Amino acid sequence: MPPVVKPFAAPRVNVRLAATVKTNPHFYPVILAGGRGTRFWPLSRKRRAKQLLALDGKQTMLQQTVARLAPMAAPSRFWIITNDDLRPAILRQLPKLPPQQIIAEPAGRNTAPAIGLAAFLLLRHDPDAVLGLFPSDHVIADPAEYRATLNRGIAIATAGDNIVVLGIRPTRPETGYGYIESVVPDHDGPLRVRRFTEKPEFGKARQFLEAGNYFWNSGMFLWRADTLAHALREHLPNTAPLLEQIAAAYSTRKFAETFRKLYPKCENISIDFAVLEPRSARGEAQSRIFCLPSDFGWNDLGSWTALHEHHAAKAKPGDGSLVSASGSFALNAKNNYVHAPGKFVALVGVSNLVIVETEDALLVTTLDQSQDVGKVVKHLDAKKLKKLV
Amino acid sequence: MPPVVKPFAAPRVNVRLAATVKTNPHFYPVILAGGRGTRFWPLSRKRRAKQLLALDGKQTMLQQTVARLAPMAAPSRFWIITNDDLRPAILRQLPKLPPQQIIAEPAGRNTAPAIGLAAFLLLRHDPDAVLGLFPSDHVIADPAEYRATLNRGIAIATAGDNIVVLGIRPTRPETGYGYIESVVPDHDGPLRVRRFTEKPEFGKARQFLEAGNYFWNSGMFLWRADTLAHALREHLPNTAPLLEQIAAAYSTRKFAETFRKLYPKCENISIDFAVLEPRSARGEAQSRIFCLPSDFGWNDLGSWTALHEHHAAKAKPGDGSLVSASGSFALNAKNNYVHAPGKFVALVGVSNLVIVETEDALLVTTLDQSQDVGKVVKHLDAKKLKKLV
Repeated sequence: MPPVVKPFAAPRVNVRLAATVKTNPHFYPVILAGGRGTRFWPLSRKRRAKQLLALDGKQTMLQQTVARLAPMAAPSRFWIITNDDLRPAILRQLPKLPPQQIIAEPAGRNTAPAIGLAAFLLLRHDPDAVLGLFPSDHVIADPAEYRATLNRGIAIATAGDNIVVLGIRPTRPETGYGYIESVVPDHDGPLRVRRFTEKPEFGKARQFLEAGNYFWNSGMFLWRADTLAHALREHLPNTAPLLEQIAAAYSTRKFAETFRKLYPKCENISIDFAVLEPRSARGEAQSRIFCLPSDFGWNDLGSWTALHEHHAAKAKPGDGSLVSASGSFALNAKNNYVHAPGKFVALVGVSNLVIVETEDALLVTTLDQSQDVGKVVKHLDAKKLKKLV
Repeated sequence: MPPVVKPFAAPRVNVRLAATVKTNPHFYPVILAGGRGTRFWPLSRKRRAKQLLALDGKQTMLQQTVARLAPMAAPSRFWIITNDDLRPAILRQLPKLPPQQIIAEPAGRNTAPAIGLAAFLLLRHDPDAVLGLFPSDHVIADPAEYRATLNRGIAIATAGDNIVVLGIRPTRPETGYGYIESVVPDHDGPLRVRRFTEKPEFGKARQFLEAGNYFWNSGMFLWRADTLAHALREHLPNTAPLLEQIAAAYSTRKFAETFRKLYPKCENISIDFAVLEPRSARGEAQSRIFCLPSDFGWNDLGSWTALHEHHAAKAKPGDGSLVSASGSFALNAKNNYVHAPGKFVALVGVSNLVIVETEDALLVTTLDQSQDVGKVVKHLDAKKLKKLV
């Protein structure tokens, strides 16, 4: 084990103390906010994606993401990568962030080019920049622990040419997530990564759950901008120069045109597939990828069902139904999730349903099958029913 | 068997021929249109009861009732008994009927006073009047056969001091209807009634179905106005004089006041309970009540489920779902009934549901339990949520 890891192998109590130290002045949160979140249709739409919805509380998921990180970085250090459909709403939701740092990709190219561009942009500005990459549509129950974990990750990332990925301890044999396989833990700190695993079958997921050295890939990463730039030049040799050219044009009059022309030429590939998987294939000692086991109450709210469970866990005991409406009456009904603002909702003899109503659409599905709601959006896309997507 | 019955014991072919003869010039349709039809909530409301909805086709149930009878009686011979909540809508729906014959009860007093009032009103105008009493919220598949049956019934009613009730041949062991027990049929014509039976248990309903001399009480009656007047004076001696006083004031300036003062003093009782049951208890030979077996495709559309079945029977083969919406998409869904005009409706993994949406309310129930929808209205009444009922 190389010396860089040693300080982070300390027992947990020390790590907790580290959270109280000042945050790293070179830390830049880069938030990926370009997704559609079609599984929250009909509430989520092309111009009102999941991260722009207040699914949990009064703030939207994106606003929560920023608020969670705000104690660690001034507004001027936030960057958001999104698209033209969503940028107007994001500007409205986050008025304190520098508008020029809310960047709309001219075309979706998955996470590798988005993250790479952020690295090249930050490098020009701060050669010691450390990027924190964050999805914008997750829920975190314990923000203090979250920030403490990030501070630990930042320390690992800045201590060398390391890549840190936050791994969520699995609590169920989930088949919808990618997994990180680490070395077998012999301490509470960061663990060298052996490999990344795509979404597993149920049997494998159960093995992963029991094994103890598998973690859910949270999509949250920490690395120095120069580490990331090097990695991109190495693993995406065609795309990296395009991103450097775009970054060089930033703040000039040529930026928009350069961005529009070059970005679509970048490879359409995820950071996992482009960098992390090939890098991890070199073996745990060489890859310099660390998984930081994380226990801050993470939930990606991947479907209406996940949202129902999330709210139900916080709700008072009752029939398990969660109704957001102007009023409601249930008769022989339990464990339903209803969103129908402005309506009086009556449920008679129905259970385990998901019912979501908007001005122009009505979805009725079950807690069992709500993960298929994305297929409704596929159908609407195919039928070119643009007003509904 | 007294002689009066003989002519109607003729074989069916003669009876059919009778339908082509001219209708009786003393026939007056009296339509009872004061019900709420709460089982069609949230579509049905206090001011927009079931009979005022176009549940089957473009015309409302009430308009269909009038249209069905129109070949048998001029508009000037129709009378409608309703209430103040519904009268404005009825005036709009039936502009050709004499407005003064659309009568709003000052208080609901069940069918006996309503029917009795009609009898006393008509007697003053036409001593040979024959009343046809009709619910306003049923569906009839074969109007020609319906009118033929009525003509047969009118002939029986006018031939003597007889009471004719149209009995529907049962097709299932229905526990939601009252039954008429007749003598055992030995011909196709009218049958003397032995007794009226309240809604039976399932086991009894099955016996009734198999027995062959039980019929569903359709709520459609035919009798001479004077027969009815005599019966009321005999069976409701306190109420009959009140109704006569009200009828005497009709067309005078005192009518509204007299009606408002006296009608609430009438007994709150159904015609079945007030007249038919005690009369039938005298035995089939004395009661002079005849059941006219009817086969004209009667359906009382008693619930959303009944409406679903009614439409499904007419629909093209498919997944059994009936969706009234601006558009829809179903995935792994079948046999649902959806009414959500103006919405795009997506059904994912749900079956046998009833989903009805209006501007201010949303009902989700099952085809199995939709008969309990009336309990939602009871709840709303109890909570004084007046806008929703």
